[in-house]
Amino acid sequence: MTRPTDDTPARDGGISRRALLAGAAATAGAVTLGSQPYRLLAQVDTATAAVPPDPTAVPGVPTTALGARSPFVHPGRAPVGVLSGPSFAPLQDMSGTITPSDLFFERNHAGVAMVDPQKWKLMIHGMVSRPLVIDLEQLLRYPTVTRTYFVECAGNGRAAYRTPKPEMTPQQVDGLLSNAEWTGVPLAMLFREAGVNPKATWFLAEGGDAARLSRSIPVQKGLDDALVVWGQNGEPLRPSNGYPVRLLLPGFEGNSSVKWLRRIELIDQPNMSRDETSKYTDPLPDGTARQFSFLMDVKSVITSPTFPRRLTDKGWWPVRGLAWSGRGRIIQVEVSTDGGRSWQPARLEGNVLPMAPVRFEYMWNWNGKPAMLLSRATDETGAVQPTRADYQRVRGIGTDFHFNYIRGWSVARDGAVSYGVEA
Amino acid sequence: MTRPTDDTPARDGGISRRALLAGAAATAGAVTLGSQPYRLLAQVDTATAAVPPDPTAVPGVPTTALGARSPFVHPGRAPVGVLSGPSFAPLQDMSGTITPSDLFFERNHAGVAMVDPQKWKLMIHGMVSRPLVIDLEQLLRYPTVTRTYFVECAGNGRAAYRTPKPEMTPQQVDGLLSNAEWTGVPLAMLFREAGVNPKATWFLAEGGDAARLSRSIPVQKGLDDALVVWGQNGEPLRPSNGYPVRLLLPGFEGNSSVKWLRRIELIDQPNMSRDETSKYTDPLPDGTARQFSFLMDVKSVITSPTFPRRLTDKGWWPVRGLAWSGRGRIIQVEVSTDGGRSWQPARLEGNVLPMAPVRFEYMWNWNGKPAMLLSRATDETGAVQPTRADYQRVRGIGTDFHFNYIRGWSVARDGAVSYGVEA
Repeated sequence: MTRPTDDTPARDGGISRRALLAGAAATAGAVTLGSQPYRLLAQVDTATAAVPPDPTAVPGVPTTALGARSPFVHPGRAPVGVLSGPSFAPLQDMSGTITPSDLFFERNHAGVAMVDPQKWKLMIHGMVSRPLVIDLEQLLRYPTVTRTYFVECAGNGRAAYRTPKPEMTPQQVDGLLSNAEWTGVPLAMLFREAGVNPKATWFLAEGGDAARLSRSIPVQKGLDDALVVWGQNGEPLRPSNGYPVRLLLPGFEGNSSVKWLRRIELIDQPNMSRDETSKYTDPLPDGTARQFSFLMDVKSVITSPTFPRRLTDKGWWPVRGLAWSGRGRIIQVEVSTDGGRSWQPARLEGNVLPMAPVRFEYMWNWNGKPAMLLSRATDETGAVQPTRADYQRVRGIGTDFHFNYIRGWSVARDGAVSYGVEA
Repeated sequence: MTRPTDDTPARDGGISRRALLAGAAATAGAVTLGSQPYRLLAQVDTATAAVPPDPTAVPGVPTTALGARSPFVHPGRAPVGVLSGPSFAPLQDMSGTITPSDLFFERNHAGVAMVDPQKWKLMIHGMVSRPLVIDLEQLLRYPTVTRTYFVECAGNGRAAYRTPKPEMTPQQVDGLLSNAEWTGVPLAMLFREAGVNPKATWFLAEGGDAARLSRSIPVQKGLDDALVVWGQNGEPLRPSNGYPVRLLLPGFEGNSSVKWLRRIELIDQPNMSRDETSKYTDPLPDGTARQFSFLMDVKSVITSPTFPRRLTDKGWWPVRGLAWSGRGRIIQVEVSTDGGRSWQPARLEGNVLPMAPVRFEYMWNWNGKPAMLLSRATDETGAVQPTRADYQRVRGIGTDFHFNYIRGWSVARDGAVSYGVEA
């Protein structure tokens, strides 16, 4: 095969090498492949590359340090520019179960802290016999585990509960859910290093951001499966996920997996920090409130077909979505296409892991009539998603967190899909 | 908590909001959070944000559409600017098993094809009763599976075999290995749709790039576990991985998982295309050559400690790496620290999946003396990595592909680690 260079004439009349290179960042050099000196092409990024009428007729884009997305693919979290609030992951644009790290949802209390890894330290103190201060180099020398767990914001679904609108997307309804493969050290190992006093029943985890977000967590969670992680989907955490180190509490509400982790204090009663008193408590209809309601309940959400999708014809359509539970594995997802009068089992795809989302898929033969699509997940503890009515009866209209009732999507006669506010 | 705005004075003397915003792309607006009008900050990307001396003393970076890497993290594939050749993934910078999609290794024969998804079509023809032409919208309506599989270039390890150098990194030694969660349609389903003639024994898969790369694959692989995928790690394939659609043949050499897939032809003998005659055959010492040697053999590579790492003191160091096999699951990885005189079992981390890399870890108590670190994987078929000497005896010095012998890393008295050419 001829090796094209900058000077190679285009092999068809439609597009030239120079046109393909338009807009490229200008770096050039030379490299030897085998014995043949080879002129490096100017760097063209696939995100900005021209798309030729016939990609088989012209050379493509040379290798780049990072493989950008296609110019036809533009996912994004939203909203942007928020310093103390959430930004939602685009669930409707996703396949599989992993959330790309740059699309992982974000919920910050004072913006994304920028931390110098050389200066990062974790202190473990309080009711311990050997207080520790560990730097990143030391942390990386402990034995590691790699596990796949979801993180979901306790407030995920709030807008859909309070002010549901037909034109809501899965991102707007439930986009404060994401999933990653995490790598780090079991907190239990650090607890053993520090010599945790058997009378310690809680630990306070504090972040190194300007909110100094802090939560009290039962010691048992630290002994069970809590991780101190630095790796996410094969690479270091991104700053919006707590770079260089965060806590990761499988199945617990997102805020408790404290980002930019800098301090763990062993204590014998909850700290009653701002973030567990003014926030993250669930007001109940009787005027009391649930507190320390860490566990994320069994839940599912259809991601396709959803608003603004339109079914173009009658026939087979896959109903796809995600199901997860903070209590363990999902054992069943049912789909209804008639608003809950009848339910059919959906297929669960691939390995079903505890505290990790599973893909479900139900092949639906649409008859062209209006329909209401629902999904209902059951986890291995037997917990099932409630209806909105049942949920509201127990939790009240004023509840702020843990919205795990059944979501619905309406399909109109013309195939238009909208968020099913009446579900 | 006070909500800072552009005009909020810095809370410490070290850094101002304006300094933090320096270099930011200038987009601003307004949004209402609750009842409080809230001034949107100019967009600051974490990749370009300033790092304050004390991140708890100043607000962080507001939410962004994409969560960039930390300014302290700069992974990259290499080399760049190559049109017909490989670019290696930075294995030494990775944790866990997933390869971030923008760091997935790349090997192209005529550059990265830029394909318009609206124009993409897959033809299935030849020895079938119902030839098919499927567009992307149609493909997305088939039932899907999501599976985690490695892809490895058949030539991975060639430079280390031919011209080993002490200053080689894991990226340079074995960086043509990557791993992803793939989502797509089983090829067997499309074969049933097309009505494959029982006399068809092979299929030709052809890419839509300027190389029109094509390989003949046994029909049985299409019936067993081949996938036609569009999803990678939760999002559409990147162009360098075949956007919008590629073939994915679990455990087979990378080039056979044809990218930018556009045509599948059912045939009753191999096509003998350029890419399976002039390339991807293995010359043997007796002058003959292995052909259609699809399966990637059992293999492992230590990713830490490796060049240019230096062990800073005696004591416990984790020896970490990846192991994989095209024949199924890894059942054992052993580590030697004395150049192969003795071997100790490494711990395999997490779920061990077939045709997917698994992390291994061996805690090594370094005594400060020179050492030679080796890893040796065994898969569920009983296949074990050979020594370099045994490998070379069978395959010869001129072989071009399938370099799965044991790799080694030397540790000097001063802790310096180099690629262990004598292993």
